[in-house]
Amino acid sequence: MALKTVLATLHFAMDRLEHLLSVARGDTPADLLLRGGRVVNVFTGEVEAPLNGSTDIAIADGIIVGIGSGYTAYGEIDLDGAFIAPGYIDAHVHIESSLCVPAQFARAILPRGVTAVVTDPHELANVAGIKGVEYIAQSGASLPLEVIVMAPSCVPATHMASSGAALDAQQIFDLRARGIVHGLAEVMNFPGVVNGSPDMISKLAVMRGTPIDGHCPGLRGRPLNAYALSGIGSDHESVSLEEAREKLARGLYLLIREATNARNLDALLPLVTSSNARRICFCTDDRTPGDLLREGSIDMMVRRAIAFGIEPVEAIRMATLNTAEWFGLPHLGAIAPGRSASLVVFDDLQNPQPKSVYAKGELIARDGALLPDIELEQADFEPGSLGTCDVDWERFNLKVTADGSTLRVIESRADQLLTRSLLLKPKVVLDHVVADIERDILKMTVVERHRGSGKQGVGFIRGFGLKRGAIAGTIAHDHHNLVIIGADDASMIAAGREVCRMGGGLAVADGQNILTRLALPVGGLMSDRPIEEIAMRYDQLIAAAKMLGSTLADPFMAMSFMALEVIPSLKLTDLGLVDVEKFEVVGLFE
Amino acid sequence: MALKTVLATLHFAMDRLEHLLSVARGDTPADLLLRGGRVVNVFTGEVEAPLNGSTDIAIADGIIVGIGSGYTAYGEIDLDGAFIAPGYIDAHVHIESSLCVPAQFARAILPRGVTAVVTDPHELANVAGIKGVEYIAQSGASLPLEVIVMAPSCVPATHMASSGAALDAQQIFDLRARGIVHGLAEVMNFPGVVNGSPDMISKLAVMRGTPIDGHCPGLRGRPLNAYALSGIGSDHESVSLEEAREKLARGLYLLIREATNARNLDALLPLVTSSNARRICFCTDDRTPGDLLREGSIDMMVRRAIAFGIEPVEAIRMATLNTAEWFGLPHLGAIAPGRSASLVVFDDLQNPQPKSVYAKGELIARDGALLPDIELEQADFEPGSLGTCDVDWERFNLKVTADGSTLRVIESRADQLLTRSLLLKPKVVLDHVVADIERDILKMTVVERHRGSGKQGVGFIRGFGLKRGAIAGTIAHDHHNLVIIGADDASMIAAGREVCRMGGGLAVADGQNILTRLALPVGGLMSDRPIEEIAMRYDQLIAAAKMLGSTLADPFMAMSFMALEVIPSLKLTDLGLVDVEKFEVVGLFE
Repeated sequence: MALKTVLATLHFAMDRLEHLLSVARGDTPADLLLRGGRVVNVFTGEVEAPLNGSTDIAIADGIIVGIGSGYTAYGEIDLDGAFIAPGYIDAHVHIESSLCVPAQFARAILPRGVTAVVTDPHELANVAGIKGVEYIAQSGASLPLEVIVMAPSCVPATHMASSGAALDAQQIFDLRARGIVHGLAEVMNFPGVVNGSPDMISKLAVMRGTPIDGHCPGLRGRPLNAYALSGIGSDHESVSLEEAREKLARGLYLLIREATNARNLDALLPLVTSSNARRICFCTDDRTPGDLLREGSIDMMVRRAIAFGIEPVEAIRMATLNTAEWFGLPHLGAIAPGRSASLVVFDDLQNPQPKSVYAKGELIARDGALLPDIELEQADFEPGSLGTCDVDWERFNLKVTADGSTLRVIESRADQLLTRSLLLKPKVVLDHVVADIERDILKMTVVERHRGSGKQGVGFIRGFGLKRGAIAGTIAHDHHNLVIIGADDASMIAAGREVCRMGGGLAVADGQNILTRLALPVGGLMSDRPIEEIAMRYDQLIAAAKMLGSTLADPFMAMSFMALEVIPSLKLTDLGLVDVEKFEVVGLFE
Repeated sequence: MALKTVLATLHFAMDRLEHLLSVARGDTPADLLLRGGRVVNVFTGEVEAPLNGSTDIAIADGIIVGIGSGYTAYGEIDLDGAFIAPGYIDAHVHIESSLCVPAQFARAILPRGVTAVVTDPHELANVAGIKGVEYIAQSGASLPLEVIVMAPSCVPATHMASSGAALDAQQIFDLRARGIVHGLAEVMNFPGVVNGSPDMISKLAVMRGTPIDGHCPGLRGRPLNAYALSGIGSDHESVSLEEAREKLARGLYLLIREATNARNLDALLPLVTSSNARRICFCTDDRTPGDLLREGSIDMMVRRAIAFGIEPVEAIRMATLNTAEWFGLPHLGAIAPGRSASLVVFDDLQNPQPKSVYAKGELIARDGALLPDIELEQADFEPGSLGTCDVDWERFNLKVTADGSTLRVIESRADQLLTRSLLLKPKVVLDHVVADIERDILKMTVVERHRGSGKQGVGFIRGFGLKRGAIAGTIAHDHHNLVIIGADDASMIAAGREVCRMGGGLAVADGQNILTRLALPVGGLMSDRPIEEIAMRYDQLIAAAKMLGSTLADPFMAMSFMALEVIPSLKLTDLGLVDVEKFEVVGLFE
């Protein structure tokens, strides 16, 4: 490439640099000057106070251009001795788990000082492939939230289910070449990596030189060495101190996770020392809209780390600089010239409750709420453009002929993704196996919904507790087919039809009556309604399921993992029952 | 680019990865197993001891593939409880300052545990341009020493001297595109950066996304903000605690330097805390062969840091992981799977004297010396291919007509690169200005030596103390023209001619007698003779100069900076006297 071409592509940025340099020198007024704050300096580990010299922060074009004295600006804000820290970065999050489009997700976390997320659009990619990744990237580009998109590495999870799309190494490479993705997202197929599977090696190869994020629950010893050797640089699946300590020692960044359904913060905080903290970051992975609104995000993790006894600047570093360093994001994670002016202001260093938040140079939130005049743009979507709920109801069939005397039944266990495989005597009515409320054996079906192929698996499950009715949804990791669990066929059909009528979503039916519903038209996974509304509707769904007898804290989240054929022991996909240990589809009867 | 093309370019590496994974899993024997060492773990900040589990280090293809138990290997070494740390990295060094070609430089530092250097081939680039950079890169490629080459950013320094070559943004971009350089070397033209000069902005632009190393002596406040804003990420020129503290706070990595002629370690060590150490590295910048052999390199800095009171693992991190992180070198700086098996072994953590050293998986040194069977390959050079000493002796002229009564004289000051500009009455003989031994006013000349253009500056200098004879050399920062300082013209001509006869180098003459000499045929800067010989000859040169009356500790190093037209106040180049404050060539007489 000729120099002219290079410089031409950088032309805008270079013009901008000339202006920014002029502001930094003090020759041109800044856009905004934040005066008199106590600056949390994540490089020195200290707080720079106005007493020791000026700590004015000069901002232009959304970028911090200088810290110190002698600046003028078109606008000034007096921080009056409040603390000011870099905006927090979520090191690993699936936005889809908020059930909201990125703009609504941003509404929940920006007022909490989380101004950047490293996201894996893995769910939407399983539904809509490249289009799903592009949608998240486009949505992020217009937000004050910095959205760093990673390329989903394991789409589909296996071939024992029909996903909506696949991403191979060529497509991942194209995403990289087009500048859409920053690195490779959690490499969940750790056996594939350890054993050098060509598919995984190709994906690692095409993303070489970028940050490659890991996911290796329980991996220790020699297999862990192999995993780290491959160039994967982090993991967020540690649940015990010993596991976390070993991963850290082998060079993996430790991303401590506090998800809705996997809470590791309390278990792992005791590991943190002033000597190893630099290699430790915070992430949320998957949080429901209600948890985001009520408990928070990375801000909550920072507060809990400080309450646990970690030095406050250290805790803030784990939410900022460390993450920026691991992912190679030199424009984020610190209050310094050249970094994004995304900042969080608070009064109490021991309990940082965001008082005001700046994103890309603009004051956007105060006291936990976005300012009224802040409008978050959201990239449009055409209904159906990111996946459909296209079920062939003519072929839909819940009848199970009693072909044996020992039925394989999935046993769901409270708060666990792992299931047990039970062998039970079926309840038979007129030569057909039916649900057995007495023994809490419900019927479950998974129906391919991306192409209307009519593929459908039917099985039985224990542990959901429904006494009547059915629940249905298009969130079913990772393929996100239509999944329905119910006490009777009529309710199941009604719930399933309602979900498809909405273009994807969640529903609860009791016979022909739809008790409550939540439309998720974006890929069958997300809504563009306000996140507060989504959180409320989601609560109503759970309440309705409980009314029908559900004994689980969140039967919809539990259901979404009952079709995930990579977590043992027995799962159901549209291709049938999967024995995960054998890694094969098995029959309903032993 | 198609996936096939990408994978084809990675084919070798991927084949290798399959094998390495197999070794990491324990399925295939390693090449070498280092058993029973106490592993300095720079991630956790702790020492992993065999007592707490196996710390065997398995190595294959020069790479660490695993740490732990269950490995077999074709060769084993019992470390018997000795400490083992990652090999040290010099964060910024000009190999040329050792006066040796890279293989000889490596002979001095490898036995000391310095197994990687980030080098700026700035001197050779000023002589030979791209060819000089290529020569250093080619030399490094065949060595057990890891040589990371940065693109010289400021060649030539100014247009007030004739350098042998120039490197513009296009050429720097080509070096990057060809994979020869890893980043942009010390950006010395800090006023250019701060003021947004198009030349500097272009160079920053074409190296964007790579590590860009800084050099900004004394820069503070708003100009420092501008410098940091531009994307430059480090500095090694701090001399005071306050300066270093400010640079660190503004986001620059602090490279603490202990050069032969600029020793900042004692002044800056008090800055280091457990909270800021992660952003601090060690570098040597410029060290003479004698200093390298007698005092050492980064190993000496680590020992002195520990002796000062810095926790040993922290001190080792500053010499390893920190540097690897700043420069984005994930294959260096730690004992972990996937990292280069370059390691240093020692018995005393409080005083790490290298006992054995491994480089790229091979035991190469023991007790401070390379093993007898280790041969370091050195890339060949054709005499003259990297610059000449091509002086037009027909036009060579030392006569200075007495055109005024107030002579501008350079005043050299002991151990300083800064000079003073004196105005003195000239000593005139037969209408010509001559040296005046009584007042220690010597004659100095700088002769363009790259193209035989005949360009020659003549001036006068005080502070060298020669009572007779002359010293001459082709080391003259940054243009490296022939520079001669002498008490009489005959000695000056003899010394200069001798240097050119050798194809570049250093010489001392007394009248027609050459007292001693050192040939530096590689670009007039370096020799391929053993470094011990170079150190000895260099000592002899200094001794000879002292015999002639020199009062300086190292008159050759002092002389090499008397022609550097960017350090105030008065300097001499082949274009004449330069008033550095005015940034222009001035006459000999006021």
